[in-house]
Amino acid sequence: MHLSPEPFSIIDTDIHEAFTSLQDLVPYLQEPWKGLIAREAWRGFAQPFAYWSTGGLSRADAKPEKGPAGSDYALMSKQLLDLYDITYPILTGYFYPAAMQMQFEFAAALACAYNDWLIEHWLDRDPRLRGSIHVAPQDPQAAVREIERLAEHPQMIQVMLPIAQRAYGDPFYHPIFEAAQRHHLVIAMHHTIFVQGALGMGRYYIERHMIIPQSFMSELISLVVNGVFDLFPDLHFALLEGGFSWLPHLMWRFEREYKSLHQEIPWVKRNPAQHIRERVKFSTQPTEDLSAQNWLRLMDMMGSDQMLMFASDYPHFDFDSPQESIPHDLPERVRQRIFFENANDLYHFEQVR
Amino acid sequence: MHLSPEPFSIIDTDIHEAFTSLQDLVPYLQEPWKGLIAREAWRGFAQPFAYWSTGGLSRADAKPEKGPAGSDYALMSKQLLDLYDITYPILTGYFYPAAMQMQFEFAAALACAYNDWLIEHWLDRDPRLRGSIHVAPQDPQAAVREIERLAEHPQMIQVMLPIAQRAYGDPFYHPIFEAAQRHHLVIAMHHTIFVQGALGMGRYYIERHMIIPQSFMSELISLVVNGVFDLFPDLHFALLEGGFSWLPHLMWRFEREYKSLHQEIPWVKRNPAQHIRERVKFSTQPTEDLSAQNWLRLMDMMGSDQMLMFASDYPHFDFDSPQESIPHDLPERVRQRIFFENANDLYHFEQVR
Repeated sequence: MHLSPEPFSIIDTDIHEAFTSLQDLVPYLQEPWKGLIAREAWRGFAQPFAYWSTGGLSRADAKPEKGPAGSDYALMSKQLLDLYDITYPILTGYFYPAAMQMQFEFAAALACAYNDWLIEHWLDRDPRLRGSIHVAPQDPQAAVREIERLAEHPQMIQVMLPIAQRAYGDPFYHPIFEAAQRHHLVIAMHHTIFVQGALGMGRYYIERHMIIPQSFMSELISLVVNGVFDLFPDLHFALLEGGFSWLPHLMWRFEREYKSLHQEIPWVKRNPAQHIRERVKFSTQPTEDLSAQNWLRLMDMMGSDQMLMFASDYPHFDFDSPQESIPHDLPERVRQRIFFENANDLYHFEQVR
Repeated sequence: MHLSPEPFSIIDTDIHEAFTSLQDLVPYLQEPWKGLIAREAWRGFAQPFAYWSTGGLSRADAKPEKGPAGSDYALMSKQLLDLYDITYPILTGYFYPAAMQMQFEFAAALACAYNDWLIEHWLDRDPRLRGSIHVAPQDPQAAVREIERLAEHPQMIQVMLPIAQRAYGDPFYHPIFEAAQRHHLVIAMHHTIFVQGALGMGRYYIERHMIIPQSFMSELISLVVNGVFDLFPDLHFALLEGGFSWLPHLMWRFEREYKSLHQEIPWVKRNPAQHIRERVKFSTQPTEDLSAQNWLRLMDMMGSDQMLMFASDYPHFDFDSPQESIPHDLPERVRQRIFFENANDLYHFEQVR
């Protein structure tokens, strides 16, 4: 079954594949890590809150017979890839060793194992799929080695830096940016279950879900003030699932702050808003209920119609359908930018016609 | 000297008065607190960063001969109250005992002393001035006693809950809201030097100044999800110096989240955006460089032209002049709302004509 396809290709920039269980990684691990997982010395991440939606974190209908939502290629094909005719589905994972707060060598080993599992179980299986290189940024040198190991894989398009409580502008992480730039890889960021807001995690899941965008704001600010855009002029960023309607605010405020306080950060040579406008793209999911007029106003306020990229967030509960999330009364040209061109400008899947 | 006054009265909702030194509070303290200050056993708050502007935190020209900027009534009158013919200048302080992380009884004593000093040195001196009741929310019962003590003072119009790292929606603070509502006092919030963002304080002052709005977002979210708007239906809020151009984002996202996750917070009976729209007003300073068109678009996106109130932030370095910060090509009706009516609706200084 196909749902009335768009007259242009669709790039889905945020799809969460999953393993059946942590045990799936055992074949890809060396000792001592192999044994730790095999004997369940560590049981994986657990979010410190309950999901209230019917299917928990995920769409209730996305759960396969065996394993969690997102772990079954056939079901994902049926519900997403084939149904909506996604030309370039980008896998972003949701098991993020970056979130480990201890035992960094273990985190680095898990990232390698996950990448090998991802290649064998997903990328090798469907040439449409694109993958994210997972790393443990808490050990930047190990992260660089992992980037070097996989950068030439034709389906690996970006390095994933998950957002927990690390501010990635910090020079500690710059070797990761250097390696990504050298290999023409995008830097993707996605929040984790450990993300917080300005006043912590909050008392409710809805509260925590409301504050997720703050962590993206803080990462953007951190990247700017630490000069990452100036130091790595060929590096581009994909900020996934953090929203975008706060961007006019952040860019305006940054312009004002830069005017009065730029002397504190003389290594930042350009208006921060311009850095962001040219170097960062944002996935649309979870879209708010915006009229076409407000989509256009926001893009005008951001000063660009080239910053937004469609994402479905399959299989999570707040999935955005390509059919419904982007208003049909937006100009076709803008829809094409959101569904294809902006992401293609970032990832260079196809030559510009 | 008067600068071409507006055809309507001006309310300035955020003016920072200051004492000459902490020693000014000694006459208003009892022992043992009196002695602690007198012998400099505590030296007051100190921000853990350097201010880069020429005058530090404040306008370079606002420093009187003796004491810090904001401590001289005559200079404030000359540079602000008389110059711009401010009909209702609202003093919001900047010495916030709420930010003390230990010794809560001491914090409560300091709040009382500050209020007594404020009345004698400012409110008694100029009937135009309005004041904020300072409290130590870390000891809610002491805060309630202080509200009771001063609620009937004719120039005291609000209770100040400064933002550091406390999420005020927490039921722990609800007695403060109960007392404020009972006395028809507004709840004002203003950030402190200890405010953080989703990833902490950052590495630079400009970074910290960029993340201030996140703390206001988190407070709003906390108030909503904990049912403060539902529990205290007559309570209104003034959020000062935290920006406002992020409101469309926050309100849209809250509407969406509430649709899918309201079952987690069944005590919240209304669309959170509607609660915010009707019960919270925001000061304009620091205004970003917005065109009149974007001011109008933002108000349209917020669904209200009744949420914004002018503030100068005198004497701080990013002072907004009433002459320059609100575009002159905004409709006169909107300018009147921002400069007077919206704040008057909140504080009821004058009967509606």
